[in-house]
Amino acid sequence: MTETLSEFGLIAKYFRPLATHEGALALGDDACMLAQQTGCDTVITADALTAGVHFLPDDPPDLIAAKALRVNLSDLAAKGAEPVGYLLALALPQSTSETWLADFARGLGEDQKAFGVSLLGGDTTSTPGPLTIAITALGRVPSGRMIRRSGARPGEAVYVSGTIGDAGAGLAVLQGATAQATDAAFLIDRYRAPTPRLDLAPALRGVATASLDISDGLLADLGHIGEQSGVRIVVEAEAVPRSAALRRFDPEGLVRAVTAGDDYEIAFTAAAPPDLPVTRIGWVEAGEGVLLVDHHGKPIPVGKTGFTHF
Amino acid sequence: MTETLSEFGLIAKYFRPLATHEGALALGDDACMLAQQTGCDTVITADALTAGVHFLPDDPPDLIAAKALRVNLSDLAAKGAEPVGYLLALALPQSTSETWLADFARGLGEDQKAFGVSLLGGDTTSTPGPLTIAITALGRVPSGRMIRRSGARPGEAVYVSGTIGDAGAGLAVLQGATAQATDAAFLIDRYRAPTPRLDLAPALRGVATASLDISDGLLADLGHIGEQSGVRIVVEAEAVPRSAALRRFDPEGLVRAVTAGDDYEIAFTAAAPPDLPVTRIGWVEAGEGVLLVDHHGKPIPVGKTGFTHF
Repeated sequence: MTETLSEFGLIAKYFRPLATHEGALALGDDACMLAQQTGCDTVITADALTAGVHFLPDDPPDLIAAKALRVNLSDLAAKGAEPVGYLLALALPQSTSETWLADFARGLGEDQKAFGVSLLGGDTTSTPGPLTIAITALGRVPSGRMIRRSGARPGEAVYVSGTIGDAGAGLAVLQGATAQATDAAFLIDRYRAPTPRLDLAPALRGVATASLDISDGLLADLGHIGEQSGVRIVVEAEAVPRSAALRRFDPEGLVRAVTAGDDYEIAFTAAAPPDLPVTRIGWVEAGEGVLLVDHHGKPIPVGKTGFTHF
Repeated sequence: MTETLSEFGLIAKYFRPLATHEGALALGDDACMLAQQTGCDTVITADALTAGVHFLPDDPPDLIAAKALRVNLSDLAAKGAEPVGYLLALALPQSTSETWLADFARGLGEDQKAFGVSLLGGDTTSTPGPLTIAITALGRVPSGRMIRRSGARPGEAVYVSGTIGDAGAGLAVLQGATAQATDAAFLIDRYRAPTPRLDLAPALRGVATASLDISDGLLADLGHIGEQSGVRIVVEAEAVPRSAALRRFDPEGLVRAVTAGDDYEIAFTAAAPPDLPVTRIGWVEAGEGVLLVDHHGKPIPVGKTGFTHF
């Protein structure tokens, strides 16, 4: 890449300032360290993003950085964990400019402040292929309190945070679909910079019996809860919260909304209505699979329930 | 990739059997969990490998897997940590065959048994670029006992495990250099499947004042200890252990050996001779940088001290 800055120089200039956690050892060691915190388990998640697959190569670098970090923080939130920090393995094409890298690091820095995390460590290499960003995020929960996918029981209700389908519509707009200017901006932002629901995480530990974040699509992901819990999830189509922008952009797109990916909202099951800003969208019953029903309880046919890579 | 196995099918078939640790939740959740272990800190390291950069694309898949895991376990060993497990972010080209993936998983499985670790979690995606393997490994040390790079003090001696320079010679052989058949096999094996010195880790905690694993080259890496510790490292050229195979392959190649990368041996400093199978190669003194000297104490000129990616 640049001829003036070495690998170590790049790390020192752009990434060391992000290593605010004491255990990161200023990125000056082979490894980082999390000191034991009595009464806490460590929750760990890893998600990688590749240019051309998970984001568009000419997306703004600070937003690419934000998305890479946020999809991982979103997993921690869904598990009821409070985030601590992350390791970053960055494979950079030779053509990467220092400006790009500066913007990328700035994006990380802004998100670190917003979400209270630190860069802990990682690895920077060059690649002959597309930019690849692999992040491993670490968080903490009180011992034994991580919320799994496997705890849903018949009779419970299903809830989601935020609105569903915006990110999928945002991607469609980026790919050429037409929307009103303010709606387009909102939907694109929802695609590029999802908000990890870390504010819900502590409260979720008290109420959620099963929880995950929506990355592959609402129905597909609820299917994971159904499978891991050994139950059927029924979603009432009309109850699924859709933003005003999405309703204007795609009035008939309910099925598109519940099968689109990249929402990064939290879907969870609970035995009692939680005192949280979430929407009840269905219930858990005996059986298996996921069912989308209309307001008469009649199943709505859905093709593919979500995104898979292969 | 294959048309018959989905992303989830691949994970279930090849990777779930590797998730032997309870906290991996059989790869069926958004995150994995390490329960607190009283009196222990968590040590975390991440290293990514890309085809064509860190290994040759037609290297055997089981050895690619082994190398990707071992370079991370090597970092844990150098820190005095006992390994627990790892997360794997795998970006697979569309052309990847199921046979390749089966061999790759088999390589991981064999190494898991050899080194006592479990797959904990990760992410599998497709990429239009080369195969990229990002691993984050986690280990444990008694609280406050992680060995850093920063503890070397003047008057201490410098030690290394194993022999130095074999891996660099192995790469040269793979790239066309001529060696005797048995030497070639040994050197190539040292390049493709380095041995993480996990057996030394517990004992190192008692004796090493600073430690790291040699990935960029002996002198370059000792330079990191010098820099982090604020000292000068002096290496006696004749004391650097070189294998019989390396001496036959490259009799005059001392400087090549101490500047070649990929050894994954441990270099450390200690105030007293350790009762360990290691070799004393020099000493720590006041000053800065790294000096290679002959048996008269005269500096030996060295160009580039090691490998950098840019």
